[in-house]
Amino acid sequence: MLIKERLFTPGPVPLPPQVIKALGQQIIHHRTPEFTQIFKDVRQKLQKLLKTERDVVLFSSSGTGAMEASVLNFFRKGDRVLIINGGKFGQRWKEIASQFELKVVDYEIEWGKTYDKDRIVEIVGEFPDIRGIFVQQSETSTTTYHDVKFLGEISAKLEDCILVVDGITSVGVYEVYPEELGIDVLVTGSQKALMLPPGLSVLYFSEKAEKRLSKSNIPKYYFDVAKEAKKQQKGQTAYTPAINLIIALNESLQLILSEGLENLAKRHQILAQATREAVKEIGLKLLSESPSNSATGVYAPAGIDADQLRKKLLELGFRVAGGQDHLKGKIFRIAHMGYFDFNDIIQVIAGLEIALYKMGLNVDIGKGVKKAQEIIINNI
Amino acid sequence: MLIKERLFTPGPVPLPPQVIKALGQQIIHHRTPEFTQIFKDVRQKLQKLLKTERDVVLFSSSGTGAMEASVLNFFRKGDRVLIINGGKFGQRWKEIASQFELKVVDYEIEWGKTYDKDRIVEIVGEFPDIRGIFVQQSETSTTTYHDVKFLGEISAKLEDCILVVDGITSVGVYEVYPEELGIDVLVTGSQKALMLPPGLSVLYFSEKAEKRLSKSNIPKYYFDVAKEAKKQQKGQTAYTPAINLIIALNESLQLILSEGLENLAKRHQILAQATREAVKEIGLKLLSESPSNSATGVYAPAGIDADQLRKKLLELGFRVAGGQDHLKGKIFRIAHMGYFDFNDIIQVIAGLEIALYKMGLNVDIGKGVKKAQEIIINNI
Repeated sequence: MLIKERLFTPGPVPLPPQVIKALGQQIIHHRTPEFTQIFKDVRQKLQKLLKTERDVVLFSSSGTGAMEASVLNFFRKGDRVLIINGGKFGQRWKEIASQFELKVVDYEIEWGKTYDKDRIVEIVGEFPDIRGIFVQQSETSTTTYHDVKFLGEISAKLEDCILVVDGITSVGVYEVYPEELGIDVLVTGSQKALMLPPGLSVLYFSEKAEKRLSKSNIPKYYFDVAKEAKKQQKGQTAYTPAINLIIALNESLQLILSEGLENLAKRHQILAQATREAVKEIGLKLLSESPSNSATGVYAPAGIDADQLRKKLLELGFRVAGGQDHLKGKIFRIAHMGYFDFNDIIQVIAGLEIALYKMGLNVDIGKGVKKAQEIIINNI
Repeated sequence: MLIKERLFTPGPVPLPPQVIKALGQQIIHHRTPEFTQIFKDVRQKLQKLLKTERDVVLFSSSGTGAMEASVLNFFRKGDRVLIINGGKFGQRWKEIASQFELKVVDYEIEWGKTYDKDRIVEIVGEFPDIRGIFVQQSETSTTTYHDVKFLGEISAKLEDCILVVDGITSVGVYEVYPEELGIDVLVTGSQKALMLPPGLSVLYFSEKAEKRLSKSNIPKYYFDVAKEAKKQQKGQTAYTPAINLIIALNESLQLILSEGLENLAKRHQILAQATREAVKEIGLKLLSESPSNSATGVYAPAGIDADQLRKKLLELGFRVAGGQDHLKGKIFRIAHMGYFDFNDIIQVIAGLEIALYKMGLNVDIGKGVKKAQEIIINNI
């Protein structure tokens, strides 16, 4: 029987028709006025997305490339940094920082929890020479939201500290305005709420961060922010850009800005709430105590392997993500960032009920769907 | 808030990605070996679809063109024909037959009902010179299924009669094998269960029908079946074909044949059953006493204008069809033919519940969805 596969994974995410159309075009050359115009448009739209007038730099890389650039360009070897490490991507901040010889204060948090404010105050009291705080605004591996505003305030109080935020699954999901939140470096990637294929990353840096560019002593070439910023101000890139992705980004940003940033955030909040409440109504437990609006992590019920459940869901048309590292087989993750509407949530919840029923669980069919419908009714 | 529009209309229907991809290609010239090969493939696949070794002719026209061709090529002026007229498309058979001077016996049926077998026997008893019986296997305007096998048997018993079937919304929904059903002329169109944009029609004719080609005295040019058949056997067409649609048809037929004709029919049966049972569970009344598996016609509840309900559904992301002629404002039609899976049905039923609730109806939210889920569970 024909069953269409639907992506509910936290990257890549489904592409809007406008993006598919843009990607399906003949390529244009990048050293042309035509490309320069598009590139300038894209950078202006990114500024609108982040409510800033500062430069935003693009790299042809996955999000991890921009994460690396955040370390390479704004720090010196031996700098002490605080890593809020509550998942696979917190771990990645730690790995990159260590790799380039920063001194890491590793604040490990149990996966699925967010940081403790008092603990942060303690740590910065103990290490007043901290020169950077690294965090995921949305930790994708645990579907956890970490408040960044508080960290911005802490960072501002230190002598010379910048706040570096991985916004890979928060930009386009929340209203992420670095200047209001006290973020100094913010990175994101194309294959999340920007609704593109992977291959493009974005890096914002504050005036405070900019001052560090000339002082950094870590070797870099491809991920040289100062060099890229200079080139990109002129509508070009230092190295060959991901032309078609940039053209497509112009379309997806148009879609985002047309919806309106407040509406965009509200939609993601409703989709996330409907998913969470429906999942709980089915009797399942959420992974996160501070759930993110980009994806919802859920424990498989007792006696059911999460990866078997995912396999069943895929048979029914839904590709969801599994758990990483020690959560493998224990949890699954339903993404709802980017090109999703509430009707998509209805579908995946109905499918989840059917999958669990088919696996022998005593599911009250329709109960979770009803919950999702009610939340939608109250919010539209 | 971003809401994606989903087509649930009985033509055009959603296009599969394979079809979209085929349509998005650069055009090729039709007087080439390359096109001839594709055209031959398409005609062979159509033969498989209809389980026949006879020729199948394509026209660059909407389905109505092939309907006209059925009259022009297989009848003589003054021939008496029986029209099973139970809806807008039965009416169309009557209009075409009358326009080309056939003598019409108009068997009018109340919209939403199918024909009475005894009445058919009476009519052919009264008019033993009937030379053709015209019917819709699926009457789209009333979402009604008319059994054609019985009419095939009746037709075969008459001295010189052929059965002409409009299969526009039945081919690709049911297993429609003209030789097993006693169909002499069968027509269909591209924008229904063949999952293409409009602009292509298909005509099958039996050996018995073929004998009439040379005897027909109705003037014709574009819709000349004998001329087309001769050309098309050589892998070409008499006039410029709808090249890209034919290339795309090769893809959609591939999809259909890969699913398997029995599976295809079973899927449509499940989708239709889930829709019908869910709609009844919500408390609504079906339009048809003999419902088709291609689309489900439903009466709007008392006090609610069907077109207002459709407007509300569209706001929620679902484009469904309205009623035609005297059913306008009274009914709406949810199509489920072609590129639909059961997850699509869940969605539109959930949306219907929300729409009715928002219009002030006392809807038991989730009840219809649950019914649809149960039918799916029992059938997968």
